[in-house]
Amino acid sequence: MGAEEARVTEARLAELATDALRGFGLGREDALAASRILVLADLFGIHTHGVSRIESYGERLALGGIKARPDIRRERVAPAIVKIDGDNGVGPLVGSRALEAALEAARESGVAIALARASNHFGPVAPYCYLAADAGFASLIGSNATTTIAPWGGRDARLGNSPVGFCVPNPAGRPILLDIAISVVARARIRQALARGEPIPPTWATDREGRSTTDPRAALDGFLLPIGGYKGYGLALVVDLFAGLLSGAAYLTHVRSWLDEPESPQNIGHFFLLIDARRLGTESWLAERMEDFCAILHSTPPADPGAPVLVPGEIELDTLERQTREGIALDPVVLAKLEAFAARRTKPEKPE
Amino acid sequence: MGAEEARVTEARLAELATDALRGFGLGREDALAASRILVLADLFGIHTHGVSRIESYGERLALGGIKARPDIRRERVAPAIVKIDGDNGVGPLVGSRALEAALEAARESGVAIALARASNHFGPVAPYCYLAADAGFASLIGSNATTTIAPWGGRDARLGNSPVGFCVPNPAGRPILLDIAISVVARARIRQALARGEPIPPTWATDREGRSTTDPRAALDGFLLPIGGYKGYGLALVVDLFAGLLSGAAYLTHVRSWLDEPESPQNIGHFFLLIDARRLGTESWLAERMEDFCAILHSTPPADPGAPVLVPGEIELDTLERQTREGIALDPVVLAKLEAFAARRTKPEKPE
Repeated sequence: MGAEEARVTEARLAELATDALRGFGLGREDALAASRILVLADLFGIHTHGVSRIESYGERLALGGIKARPDIRRERVAPAIVKIDGDNGVGPLVGSRALEAALEAARESGVAIALARASNHFGPVAPYCYLAADAGFASLIGSNATTTIAPWGGRDARLGNSPVGFCVPNPAGRPILLDIAISVVARARIRQALARGEPIPPTWATDREGRSTTDPRAALDGFLLPIGGYKGYGLALVVDLFAGLLSGAAYLTHVRSWLDEPESPQNIGHFFLLIDARRLGTESWLAERMEDFCAILHSTPPADPGAPVLVPGEIELDTLERQTREGIALDPVVLAKLEAFAARRTKPEKPE
Repeated sequence: MGAEEARVTEARLAELATDALRGFGLGREDALAASRILVLADLFGIHTHGVSRIESYGERLALGGIKARPDIRRERVAPAIVKIDGDNGVGPLVGSRALEAALEAARESGVAIALARASNHFGPVAPYCYLAADAGFASLIGSNATTTIAPWGGRDARLGNSPVGFCVPNPAGRPILLDIAISVVARARIRQALARGEPIPPTWATDREGRSTTDPRAALDGFLLPIGGYKGYGLALVVDLFAGLLSGAAYLTHVRSWLDEPESPQNIGHFFLLIDARRLGTESWLAERMEDFCAILHSTPPADPGAPVLVPGEIELDTLERQTREGIALDPVVLAKLEAFAARRTKPEKPE
């Protein structure tokens, strides 16, 4: 962002995000929980999935496509399984509640899964993984999404570019955190190639007929390709099977498009699988192994001497630490909109 | 295999495999359990990971690199976590025992994980996933392996091409089953390109300096590339974190090479994470959703009219069904060796 960026402290951004969500009708506790996830996304530098999303959440709340005051319910169907009915609440709120439920069950059983249905876009996965790691839990967390990917060998978008995250805590240092979507690249990368007039690698996307293409314009009319061909196709399906099918949410083409039908519930699903790492050994045992694991990777001779080997999550965790100290670099347009939304919370409070 | 193939029934192959393993010193129950996994691999058509492996297992058993009579122990460290000490037994035996332990705990808690250490090559993942699905459980199962992949941006093999499998059962039909390794292709595909004098795509492998290459000879001196670049690098690490680091097994470069040090324990680790699908809804609810999920995928218009869209596991499950009826097509050299090993079991029985 350079000269154009605005700097805002974590506390101030959390306050603004909470007020903005309350301005759209959310209760105080719910707005706090949802804004915690979105502000963490911005702290990680994942601005596309942070507080900038509040604008579109607000549009859908205003249209009735998302409920401002959902009645989120948990059902403990087994000692280690919690089903969450999100009642069409804002995604990061449903996600937070599901994470809490999973933490509670995993503290008792050692392992637990929370399966959420009737939810919406829940932000990026990294904040949930990070919060779980902070509490001492390894995690495997994912969500399904609107269809943008064609099945391998097909020419119609029937599955989402589902995000999935994995994290293992380190009691004495940083967790290892992987937060990915299953496409080779995001559509934004293809738009950038088009803007520069450059071809794209044949592994990125297909045209509308399902044929691999190097033409960014044809790719934008076509479908994103998953990593590793049929392997990534399979991985995207697995995320949808766990997040959508097993949770009782919509899956594949049943997930409604946020853009095409903003007034309809999407019925997106998520899963939160947690493992209590403290049950596996002492903190020093785990810390020592995690330090050693990272040291083996960091000491790998690099192919390019100027680009040392990284451990997943390192860039995001660097950004988080820096922005916690120095403030969050935000697009000033996003910040101005957020301030305007927050200012709307001047109408008389509803009793809560 | 064509005209050269031998046909053998499942029952006969199980008998031969069990006798062969007993000939190498395994007890009856242990040999039965291990051969069940290997025969299932051959039924699926995964012959590289089936009974053909008994030869190398036998070599290592003879050298003392694997124990014929391990004392496999379980420790239930939480209601839903079982740690398994494989005592350096044959991999498919340790894997079977860990799967049993995970099933037992997951029946009680709804979800459970078994983490195995002190194990060896455990065959392919598909048989374990299939057995779990047959018992009504969704699964996520993986193992670490000897180092063959360089970290993303590195030029030294520091992580294994770890296999991982995912499966969701269908009470009224076939499960969806994905069993993959994290490299784009196996080394065999690169050897085939070399034999045909063809270049390979730049996404398959690097040379020994860690630079992407299209020369199969340079690739065979170098490192396999993971699917999706840093994404697959991260996924391979996650499998090793769960299978190796959290289980108490070796991980990354601590996993000893079977080929270089056949007399040393490898201390390979596995994880078996199971979810009891019957806790999530009725059988008809799940069956209906699974049928619908597959129908949405199968009805996708194909890019190539002659190649319909498939669901993961379909090819392997077709092969399993056909070979269960018609017998297993086996390389006659493998069969002859197996018969010779089985014939060795004529020495007086040790008491068991």
